[in-house]
Amino acid sequence: MSASTVQFWFDFASTYSYPAAMRLEAEAKARGVDVVWRAILLGPIFAAQGLKDAPFRVFPQKGRYMQRDLERICAALHLPFQLPAPFPQNSLLCGRIAHALDGEARVRFVKSVYALEFGEGRTISDPLIAAEALRRADLDPSFVEKAKEDEVKAALRAATEEAQSAGVFGAPAFTTKDGELFWGNDRLEDALNWAVQGKL
Amino acid sequence: MSASTVQFWFDFASTYSYPAAMRLEAEAKARGVDVVWRAILLGPIFAAQGLKDAPFRVFPQKGRYMQRDLERICAALHLPFQLPAPFPQNSLLCGRIAHALDGEARVRFVKSVYALEFGEGRTISDPLIAAEALRRADLDPSFVEKAKEDEVKAALRAATEEAQSAGVFGAPAFTTKDGELFWGNDRLEDALNWAVQGKL
Repeated sequence: MSASTVQFWFDFASTYSYPAAMRLEAEAKARGVDVVWRAILLGPIFAAQGLKDAPFRVFPQKGRYMQRDLERICAALHLPFQLPAPFPQNSLLCGRIAHALDGEARVRFVKSVYALEFGEGRTISDPLIAAEALRRADLDPSFVEKAKEDEVKAALRAATEEAQSAGVFGAPAFTTKDGELFWGNDRLEDALNWAVQGKL
Repeated sequence: MSASTVQFWFDFASTYSYPAAMRLEAEAKARGVDVVWRAILLGPIFAAQGLKDAPFRVFPQKGRYMQRDLERICAALHLPFQLPAPFPQNSLLCGRIAHALDGEARVRFVKSVYALEFGEGRTISDPLIAAEALRRADLDPSFVEKAKEDEVKAALRAATEEAQSAGVFGAPAFTTKDGELFWGNDRLEDALNWAVQGKL
């Protein structure tokens, strides 16, 4: 593990995690930072804050803004964007599959899922869509079955608990070795810079 | 009024409005954008969303993050930062005074208030501190009395209502002539760029 490592915490249900996941590899490589991609579930994290639903549904005005904000951000990045139906998506299946994969394979799968979900508006809780994400990531589509394994289920729960312990309250989030927390696609560069130089 | 005009909506109680106010003139000038500085009150805007208090107090974990985030942002900008006590501050007096001033005088006053509040941790609801902000902005400290005028009180209320009509749900916020809304210090450059070129 290099001296500069960042933990990237994401939930497949999280909208702003989509542009972050698509941008992260290039930005990290440019700075020589290693990234550990950690799928989590925001449900328990929101519930612990007393939120009964995703913040953009509790605050619909903010939800409408978020959608327009993402349209503008994705347009600038030349990324297709459409909200899937239903929205938000149930991210449990793909979150588990992510934990059944390692390293580069996990990264390819995560990006395939986000591209299907927010680029094409697909329903990622559907095992056929999850299998398609695996296929597009040059992985065995039968890996969908791994989501049923107790070890994999436990890994997703453990990552979520670790995120909470690190202070994560939303996604995407980034944490550095020296304990700094950065929240949002907007803080991706800041988190990577901090990992290298201890400042923004 | 130039073709490129941005409305800048801020509340003196808003933390992220502090770096935005300090950065705005230089960034706008660099792009040839005219900015209209509009003091508002977030209280009624939060209440309309069903929030009983400032979001960072309703969600204390987010509040702690916000403080650290601002420390990092202000350090990078070489701006002093300290939270005033009590926090958040009552922004009514200074919000009214801002509406009693125009153009450059208003901008100088706004920046003086933010510097006292978040740079030095002063209590801006104190008329003596408001008078000091006027003095530092090369304005007559007796302008504090203007806050008592009905016309000035009405102007702050009207600006708040206009912000709500424009979809503003938090501060700082920026709106462009073509109806785009941008929220947060993080979107300052995007808002100005949009005003010039219709994209980020």
